[in-house]
Amino acid sequence: MSGKLYLLPNLLDESLPAEPFLPISVSEAVHRIQGLIAESEKMARRYLRRFLSHDEMAKMPLAMLNEHSKDPTPLIQPLKRGETWGLISDAGLPCLADPGADLVWLAHQNGIAVETFVGPSSIVMALQLSGFGGQQFSFHGYLPREVPDLEKKVRDLEKQPGTHIWIEAPYRSAKMLDLLKQTLKPTTRLCVAANLTTPNQKVASQTIAKWKEKSFVLEKEPVVFLIG
Amino acid sequence: MSGKLYLLPNLLDESLPAEPFLPISVSEAVHRIQGLIAESEKMARRYLRRFLSHDEMAKMPLAMLNEHSKDPTPLIQPLKRGETWGLISDAGLPCLADPGADLVWLAHQNGIAVETFVGPSSIVMALQLSGFGGQQFSFHGYLPREVPDLEKKVRDLEKQPGTHIWIEAPYRSAKMLDLLKQTLKPTTRLCVAANLTTPNQKVASQTIAKWKEKSFVLEKEPVVFLIG
Repeated sequence: MSGKLYLLPNLLDESLPAEPFLPISVSEAVHRIQGLIAESEKMARRYLRRFLSHDEMAKMPLAMLNEHSKDPTPLIQPLKRGETWGLISDAGLPCLADPGADLVWLAHQNGIAVETFVGPSSIVMALQLSGFGGQQFSFHGYLPREVPDLEKKVRDLEKQPGTHIWIEAPYRSAKMLDLLKQTLKPTTRLCVAANLTTPNQKVASQTIAKWKEKSFVLEKEPVVFLIG
Repeated sequence: MSGKLYLLPNLLDESLPAEPFLPISVSEAVHRIQGLIAESEKMARRYLRRFLSHDEMAKMPLAMLNEHSKDPTPLIQPLKRGETWGLISDAGLPCLADPGADLVWLAHQNGIAVETFVGPSSIVMALQLSGFGGQQFSFHGYLPREVPDLEKKVRDLEKQPGTHIWIEAPYRSAKMLDLLKQTLKPTTRLCVAANLTTPNQKVASQTIAKWKEKSFVLEKEPVVFLIG
């Protein structure tokens, strides 16, 4: 008898409450898991605290899956013994711009059922809020860091059909916005979606020509960028 | 004073209950709207019935946004007068492989706030369940229908980095699977995710070599296809 792997959604910001963003099925699933795989122990505990009592938390085994522990093979063992484990990432949905895909693939190869749950994705919300076409879109993760490479990349994306989505480290988001305003054509449409689902959420979607007239300050905020 | 546009999630299958898939904030939002924009009146009524009383439903104005009414300009008028309206699609999330983007863009250009809510997306769930990389992915909508064009397209996608996602009309999904098994390289990884979130959900993720040995019957089912 094989166990199950639950892909559990996290919130987009750890200070947010669970209720408006997570359906009741997530809380029910957390009560069924026999262990939790996370990017860090700190974030695993913060997550469990939303759903479990102190005693329930103390008994829950934790395992790490992050840049230091990329081999998912040890994580599959309890599932092969018939246990049900959850997988979370530090924010949003596991396996979407976050670790987890290799573990899911390994689960499939071992006949272990994988279940997913509805939760917030900054990529999806930004795409909806942009007003850009959602019939064809690409997520590019992080773009190149060096300025000449980055300019070349965004000019290249600008020419390709569909909506293009990427993220940037919060401390570099203001620089990214400046570069886009200087590099893209005046008629290209740019959306900047910052702090999604938080009280500080701000979304603007305009042509580059209008962005140049606009005052929009970004200060070390998590941002999704879109052109389309 | 401007109104608001709420991008409300629908379920992936109309026979499903709301509770495990939609957070409580969706029900609260439906009680705040003064009108609902949908792809069809039938689906609008089925949606509202989940949240509202018969009397509340009878009073709710409906407006259509679909292939026959592509101009969103009339829909923005009540929002400009200060009303809050919701937008749904027949299944899943509005603006994601579904109508709505032009209305959202028009809302931005008129200074109308747009809010989105957490809900199920078959594209996102399929990507998570595939075990394929979620650091870089593209959604292509529907691929070409003619066999030679379709073969060329999937061979082309196979060569490009990242995960590639597309959908197919339910009555053509079995043909698509056959074509992929015959066209793609034995080492290419293919995921087929059918009937997501329903009791008939079935997901398989394997190399093409293993798909050729596998019995997996598709019968007019909504399917998301992924290679990666």
